[in-house]
Amino acid sequence: MRKTLLLLSALLLGNCMAWGQDKMLTMEDAMLGYYKFRPSTINQLSWRPDSKEYTFIKENKLYVQSITSKNNKPLISLDQINTALKSNEIDELKRFPRTSWISFNQFSFYAKDYRVVFDIASKSVVAKKRYKSEWNNITFNKDLNMIAYTKDNNLYVSDRSDKDIAITSEDDKNIVSGQAVSRSEFGISGGIFWSPKSKYIAFYQKDESEVTDYPLVNIEARVAELRNIKYPMAGMDSEHVKLGIYNVTSNKTVFIDNNPDSEQYLTNISWEPNEQHIYIAVLNREQNHMKLNKYNASTGKLIKTLFEEKSESWVEPEDKLYFISGKADRFVWHSERDGYKHLYLYNTDGKFIKQLTKGDWAIRNLIGTDKSAKYIYFTATKDSPIDNNLYKVSMKSGKITRLTKAEGYHNVSLNGNKSYFIDNYSSLKNPRTIEISSTKGKKIKSLLQATDPYKDYNLGEIKLGNLKAKDGKTDLYYRMILPSDFDPNKKYPVIVYVYGGPHSQLVTNRWMGATRMWQQYMAQKGYIAFTLDNRGTAHRGHKFESAIHRQLGTPEVEDQMVGVDYLMSLPYVDKDRVGVHGWSYGGFMTISMLLKHNDIFKVGVAGGPVIDWKYYEIMYGERYMDKPQENPEGYKNSSLINKVDDLKGRLMIIHGSIDPTVVWQHSQLFLRECVKKGKLIDYMIYPTHPHNVRGKDRVHLMNTVSRYFEDHL
Amino acid sequence: MRKTLLLLSALLLGNCMAWGQDKMLTMEDAMLGYYKFRPSTINQLSWRPDSKEYTFIKENKLYVQSITSKNNKPLISLDQINTALKSNEIDELKRFPRTSWISFNQFSFYAKDYRVVFDIASKSVVAKKRYKSEWNNITFNKDLNMIAYTKDNNLYVSDRSDKDIAITSEDDKNIVSGQAVSRSEFGISGGIFWSPKSKYIAFYQKDESEVTDYPLVNIEARVAELRNIKYPMAGMDSEHVKLGIYNVTSNKTVFIDNNPDSEQYLTNISWEPNEQHIYIAVLNREQNHMKLNKYNASTGKLIKTLFEEKSESWVEPEDKLYFISGKADRFVWHSERDGYKHLYLYNTDGKFIKQLTKGDWAIRNLIGTDKSAKYIYFTATKDSPIDNNLYKVSMKSGKITRLTKAEGYHNVSLNGNKSYFIDNYSSLKNPRTIEISSTKGKKIKSLLQATDPYKDYNLGEIKLGNLKAKDGKTDLYYRMILPSDFDPNKKYPVIVYVYGGPHSQLVTNRWMGATRMWQQYMAQKGYIAFTLDNRGTAHRGHKFESAIHRQLGTPEVEDQMVGVDYLMSLPYVDKDRVGVHGWSYGGFMTISMLLKHNDIFKVGVAGGPVIDWKYYEIMYGERYMDKPQENPEGYKNSSLINKVDDLKGRLMIIHGSIDPTVVWQHSQLFLRECVKKGKLIDYMIYPTHPHNVRGKDRVHLMNTVSRYFEDHL
Repeated sequence: MRKTLLLLSALLLGNCMAWGQDKMLTMEDAMLGYYKFRPSTINQLSWRPDSKEYTFIKENKLYVQSITSKNNKPLISLDQINTALKSNEIDELKRFPRTSWISFNQFSFYAKDYRVVFDIASKSVVAKKRYKSEWNNITFNKDLNMIAYTKDNNLYVSDRSDKDIAITSEDDKNIVSGQAVSRSEFGISGGIFWSPKSKYIAFYQKDESEVTDYPLVNIEARVAELRNIKYPMAGMDSEHVKLGIYNVTSNKTVFIDNNPDSEQYLTNISWEPNEQHIYIAVLNREQNHMKLNKYNASTGKLIKTLFEEKSESWVEPEDKLYFISGKADRFVWHSERDGYKHLYLYNTDGKFIKQLTKGDWAIRNLIGTDKSAKYIYFTATKDSPIDNNLYKVSMKSGKITRLTKAEGYHNVSLNGNKSYFIDNYSSLKNPRTIEISSTKGKKIKSLLQATDPYKDYNLGEIKLGNLKAKDGKTDLYYRMILPSDFDPNKKYPVIVYVYGGPHSQLVTNRWMGATRMWQQYMAQKGYIAFTLDNRGTAHRGHKFESAIHRQLGTPEVEDQMVGVDYLMSLPYVDKDRVGVHGWSYGGFMTISMLLKHNDIFKVGVAGGPVIDWKYYEIMYGERYMDKPQENPEGYKNSSLINKVDDLKGRLMIIHGSIDPTVVWQHSQLFLRECVKKGKLIDYMIYPTHPHNVRGKDRVHLMNTVSRYFEDHL
Repeated sequence: MRKTLLLLSALLLGNCMAWGQDKMLTMEDAMLGYYKFRPSTINQLSWRPDSKEYTFIKENKLYVQSITSKNNKPLISLDQINTALKSNEIDELKRFPRTSWISFNQFSFYAKDYRVVFDIASKSVVAKKRYKSEWNNITFNKDLNMIAYTKDNNLYVSDRSDKDIAITSEDDKNIVSGQAVSRSEFGISGGIFWSPKSKYIAFYQKDESEVTDYPLVNIEARVAELRNIKYPMAGMDSEHVKLGIYNVTSNKTVFIDNNPDSEQYLTNISWEPNEQHIYIAVLNREQNHMKLNKYNASTGKLIKTLFEEKSESWVEPEDKLYFISGKADRFVWHSERDGYKHLYLYNTDGKFIKQLTKGDWAIRNLIGTDKSAKYIYFTATKDSPIDNNLYKVSMKSGKITRLTKAEGYHNVSLNGNKSYFIDNYSSLKNPRTIEISSTKGKKIKSLLQATDPYKDYNLGEIKLGNLKAKDGKTDLYYRMILPSDFDPNKKYPVIVYVYGGPHSQLVTNRWMGATRMWQQYMAQKGYIAFTLDNRGTAHRGHKFESAIHRQLGTPEVEDQMVGVDYLMSLPYVDKDRVGVHGWSYGGFMTISMLLKHNDIFKVGVAGGPVIDWKYYEIMYGERYMDKPQENPEGYKNSSLINKVDDLKGRLMIIHGSIDPTVVWQHSQLFLRECVKKGKLIDYMIYPTHPHNVRGKDRVHLMNTVSRYFEDHL
């Protein structure tokens, strides 16, 4: 009996060890394994204001450490916070909250129903502001003592004395205030804009009366119910947007001086630090002519158009004005006007001062200036379009200095006076490094080197590379994952994973090349996984991006086929077994590729695909395609409905049944055309899911996708 | 050169001949081949009133022939009709119209915008009544000089002088007059009932205010649009139905004396020949208690409940009162009260006179009495439940005589005084025979013997048979189709085609056993096609049908498995390759079988399936299941949502995207549960299609279904 047990243990141990060296990802691992496989990190690593100290959370305690010190010390514990909360009759927290530093000794955080300001020295709550669960778009002012919020279609403010005041009181549900407009294009993420000194609340107000309803159906009600959304389709009537400015003291609202009936876009609402003026990048509906307008905040009157930008394709302002610290009359403007996103310095009268950066590379993220405004700090693609490095440019000389040294993708956090930065970076083979450096270029200390979280797993090798586009010049970056246990003498099927749409960059020099783990899952099953960023995608300059203008699906597919040609040249690729999968724009790409190159692709799986751009929304759709009435040829050529005859391979389309982004009409119309033309396709829906299938149901989704490739590729 | 051509011709000829003996059905043949493969027939074969002559159409001429004559003669031609139409300024017809005899020399037909009465002797239009294209539910009175019709929710009449009079003028769209009610259960096919002498129009009026809307979406609009339907779900608030009686002379409407708020069913509206009274079979919402009520037509007052019928399961009146010719105070009533549908004689005071037919067989169709009311003629299952024969029963003695001699399924048409009948029949091996016989039992002449329209096709052999249900007594009839070129030494996969719901009978002794040609299509591809009529289906008596009461899916599946057990006993059946397919109730059955017997069925394809009866409509659903609140166990046990864990085989569900019968919620909820439980299924929708995919798109549908079996079975 004893012997048997021992033998059993030995067997189990043996199994475990073998398994330990050769583990396989499950679909749950691939879809839900974010925390399981996240390279180790430092929780809430932040700069403490006005200091050379940084703080982080460990085991429900906030620790502080000086950059010069080897030791850290606990600053405050969850228990201490809870004691303070309790004495303020605020519900206790279960874990250390996500904190935002306000000053050397104070930070704020959310507790149940409250935003709390906590003082470390006194270990007490020094301020609290209550909010209610039925409030939406909760937006605090800088001092955290007022809240602007929305209920239904109206905007309210809870003022310093917690009094609730209605800023708007529109009965007409089509008049919506305080919410994002223009379907959150142009960098818009909300509709409430506190002025820096809290005197004003600027807010968007949109009139959606002329926008058609799109009917979604909620099947979870006892009897399925209608849920209409407003969906402005390309070429049709759009919403009308105004900007209101509410004066908190006088309780009066003015609207900025703009033609309320025009369908222009009011983008990048920017407050001047002294809050006397507000700036709007006003874009015409055609999106090819922008005016940067300056308005009087108290009257709403237009003071001046500071400058204009025009383009044959599109102008796409996505970045607010950045006011130079200490020089309130100067701001930095982002523009692609010279072909790449660069920084331009203006004064608040609209006088052009200088172009701060230049070259065939693009700004990714403006960080800001140091206090004396000697340098501007930013991240950019200067050294490689797939990397992200931190740079500083001298305001005076224009000299650019790279501050991050290692190749890869750097996420940086600079301290208040921009003397030091936390550098959290990764690259294809490096899961994560965290260091602190000075902006003079000196590495101060290493904080963390993460180990490979997949070290026990039998993953496929990932390669990053680039190919020349058909013009022989343009670089196209790709990522290829070879099957686990790759044998160059064998032949492998390929699945191209594609997105290909604007604002995207799938191939970057991050940990594992930013691979979606489904690709690794399929690599385990013996598929080569391939992804390429075609023209139209982000961070490669305006020419690269705007090649798609009025002809979506054409340059993108051409570039994808450069990737496929490369695959076909590889001796270990099974040329008869090439599949393609993508979602949304990638669904459009998947079907486009399958139909345009029906001799190449055997199987495609397209999720939430755009089928015909005239059913897509105005703001995104018209930027790239103009109106259907202005570009009938382009719409016709890009419509997949007109290409159904070319279907040869196996195609599965998947759609979330309440998709508010690429509405269900798209794939239903395609399917209907397939039925008309006698073309068999496969179809799947995800009931109750919107544009993407997220959460645990994603396991089911990707099992469905994977089974389809296994059944048919 | 010449030689080559000759050789080629010979080859082609050879091919053609071989092909001619061995043709294969295409899917188009199977789905759309109704006319191509219809056994030859005689067009519009009818009795001429008050004569021993019959008429028919040939080459756009109406011919007449006496039953004693060997020759026919042309009576009237399309050209002659068109000449008459032209002189009446009515559009000419392109082919000979479908005519209805009125008298020896007059018939009526529809021309564009008109119902026309044509006189053969004078070759002229003797009456015409105009109608408009925007009218719905057009219902003529007997003399064809008035039309009752609906527009939107209201009822109108075009009177003898073509004046349009509104009978109802309800602004509230929830009040609907003149249309079918109760979702066309209880034999209801319309909502307008002219009295025999045209003094009154009885009409249904339903108030749907309390019935929930079900949202359907029309994707063919520029932006998809909502199209609500009223859909009363089991256990929820239902429509309230009234019967109005409009007096054409006085322009006044009375409503019959009934509680308008009760949710009872007003069924089988029957006018007395003298039109003084109207009869309604009033059924409670529980559908287990019927009152046959007699009302005064001019006042709407209840005169008397003639008799009542109750049942532990359900009472389902589906046949109007039949008044005995010449004896206006006597009528025949259909009832299943003794277990089988039989005929009962009553007088109009409600006095029970006698049971006219009796036995363990069922009336299929009451034809009527001869003028002296000596006999009642009917078709029934007396000699076999899968046959349909004509019988007469002596009113006096009760003696029943069978009038159709050959085995099979007889469609009969008796002349006015019931002395002769046209017998149009078929059976498993006989495509069609048309004969004339006397109701004394003598065959008068043969008119047609059709040949096999599939004689050049290589079809599978069809067998009809029966098996004993688990009780060892009940016969279950089946149809089996063997693969083309069947070899008993081989093994074949099976596809069970199932419907299994009430009111159906799939297996009958008609031409080819009433096979759906898709089954033959699959037989060609090497599948055995099997179908069995389980308990719950029609024409087998109330016990057989009501076995399913409160437990849908249980006895039906049990019986289907008797069929499958039989299949498993056959040496040429491949036990590992059994599939099942069905639509609607058959979709419910398909999934029930696949889940309950997941060790047997490898593949299922379910179309428009009921998933949970609580989402089905009140009238049909509550008859079989009672309300959800009355039968929670039954609903729980029959719900397929609760059985998702048992899914093992490959299942494809198909749903029409605007299905108003089994609403889409059903299969979406099932799919959602599959996603929750991590069960993969396949899914297909047919955009713009309602409950069934009809017309040319059906080819696509069945290609999809067939491919699924070929891919996975």
